[in-house]
Amino acid sequence: MIKMITNKIRLAQGAGGLHTYKLINELFLKYFTNSILDQQLDAAIIPGFPGKWAFTTDSFVVQPLFFPGGNIGKLSVCGTINDLAVSGAKPLYLSCSFIIEEGFVVENLEIIVASMAETTKNAGVLIATGDTKVVEKGSCDGIFINTTGLGFLPAEKDYTPKHITSGDKIILTGIPGRHGLAILAARNKLEVSPPLVSDCACLHELLASLNHLDIHCMRDPTRGGLAITLNELALQSNLGFLIEETALPKDVRINSLAELLGLDPLYLANEGIAIIIISSQDASSAINVLQQHPLGQKAAIIGEIFEENPGQVLLSTNLGTKRFLKMTAGNLLPRIC
Amino acid sequence: MIKMITNKIRLAQGAGGLHTYKLINELFLKYFTNSILDQQLDAAIIPGFPGKWAFTTDSFVVQPLFFPGGNIGKLSVCGTINDLAVSGAKPLYLSCSFIIEEGFVVENLEIIVASMAETTKNAGVLIATGDTKVVEKGSCDGIFINTTGLGFLPAEKDYTPKHITSGDKIILTGIPGRHGLAILAARNKLEVSPPLVSDCACLHELLASLNHLDIHCMRDPTRGGLAITLNELALQSNLGFLIEETALPKDVRINSLAELLGLDPLYLANEGIAIIIISSQDASSAINVLQQHPLGQKAAIIGEIFEENPGQVLLSTNLGTKRFLKMTAGNLLPRIC
Repeated sequence: MIKMITNKIRLAQGAGGLHTYKLINELFLKYFTNSILDQQLDAAIIPGFPGKWAFTTDSFVVQPLFFPGGNIGKLSVCGTINDLAVSGAKPLYLSCSFIIEEGFVVENLEIIVASMAETTKNAGVLIATGDTKVVEKGSCDGIFINTTGLGFLPAEKDYTPKHITSGDKIILTGIPGRHGLAILAARNKLEVSPPLVSDCACLHELLASLNHLDIHCMRDPTRGGLAITLNELALQSNLGFLIEETALPKDVRINSLAELLGLDPLYLANEGIAIIIISSQDASSAINVLQQHPLGQKAAIIGEIFEENPGQVLLSTNLGTKRFLKMTAGNLLPRIC
Repeated sequence: MIKMITNKIRLAQGAGGLHTYKLINELFLKYFTNSILDQQLDAAIIPGFPGKWAFTTDSFVVQPLFFPGGNIGKLSVCGTINDLAVSGAKPLYLSCSFIIEEGFVVENLEIIVASMAETTKNAGVLIATGDTKVVEKGSCDGIFINTTGLGFLPAEKDYTPKHITSGDKIILTGIPGRHGLAILAARNKLEVSPPLVSDCACLHELLASLNHLDIHCMRDPTRGGLAITLNELALQSNLGFLIEETALPKDVRINSLAELLGLDPLYLANEGIAIIIISSQDASSAINVLQQHPLGQKAAIIGEIFEENPGQVLLSTNLGTKRFLKMTAGNLLPRIC
């Protein structure tokens, strides 16, 4: 029961007085309660560790706020947890900061907050500190959420692109394009039945199951999709990436809808798959481990690293031809995350 | 020289492709460059410490974006550094995340980014990780900035309100109301000559100069001003706060302008002063130390903690009467930070 909050968010709830105090205590703390956050300090106090920390931030501006498979709240937790997970870190703490438009329906805010609470709880992550601002009607688009994450990184772990070497295998843990296409369908009210569901999920458990293997680098292909992320890795490692189109995990509905819309799933955003660059001898063990996890059932070796074509990504197509997957400057979808 | 960026921010610069890559490399990294950020990883890797960490987040939505004494960029750095500093921590790392409106003038973005770079450099703080989103024209109000900060907190330090005890003295390091009134004057184009300048400043150096003294708690009175922050501390410590109006640091221009506008400087936001709750025997030493620093010249003992009236703040007025400084539910100013 949220007795003292009216049905719509008011400017005074972001101004720092009694109404802000009540909003925090009666909505945010109700869902996010934990021993660190409950202290309500200007800065949360978290324990130190002798190893390293992974530290990452993302602001989420996705439209629509609610979509099949998730909402902006769940996405804001999964997105930041995944950035920590691909660094090899164990996600531990999140900050969350809300910018809310005056008039935003409190029930919708509660659904968003509840789903953030559920997602962090399932992930074993604490929301340690937060902030709320309210802006006038028309000054933001419903709600924007920033999450910033901290994860513990054992001293010896280093999954940065400098470890990528020629001969490494490229693994993709799932089907590319789901999130981007689900958002696009929801935004444009395309009648897809059953609805296309985003892959939005936390990957830390799946990726941690590979801890014993010789991983060289990991990355989650979000904005810009698989193609752009592979290009970034190729540039950062100064090596050539060769992708086998026939090896890519596929879903016939995604491919046909994307084709219909003139879109390439390889350039569409993902929120629940990872690219893993791994030593050749450990690649098939990794696939075996990944496929035992619900989020890794479609995992596949999709390509290999070469000395040739440094900084570029080459696609060996279904038709047997080869073409470069370009670092596009074209119209990628805005507000996908 | 920023050759490849056109004059106004475009949606594609937030979509994750080549234009985002260029914006990051040619604007953000130009100013923020450091060995951690330059790695451009999904999560920055920062060293661990055996002590504790202070962890804090704030989203800044101030209007106008530029005001006498600062801009949204400087404010976003000072605000988060101050939240770390009042926790007793040494500020070390910041994340920064931008939500930018399509069409935002790149030259203004550059001024904001340059002032963030200058402020962090002067403070000895590194911007370790960042994020940029661009939303359509009309979907946000120019630019919003989130900063999330990490500071090292020695194991023995604990400035939480539970340490406040009856008999403690209350110190204020400067004049209350400057930031709120400066923003209000700039927003409403009040012709104040010379312009009223915000107190926006980083307080970590000033506050660290008190490290050797018996500090019980510190807090920076931002949104809601001195009155609301004192009320929060009174509630959290379950003690009574008595403030002497005659002892408050004052500026005649601030007081007369506030009076003219029907505002109480004690409820106006500040971005460059701190409340320090300190043991009675160390209070005058603290004042001596504070007054030697440019940001602490007006520091004064403004009151004391009592067992009476727990959870409440009593003001002993200039006229010799007493009244409660209420935890107001009234119309505090929105978008002050």
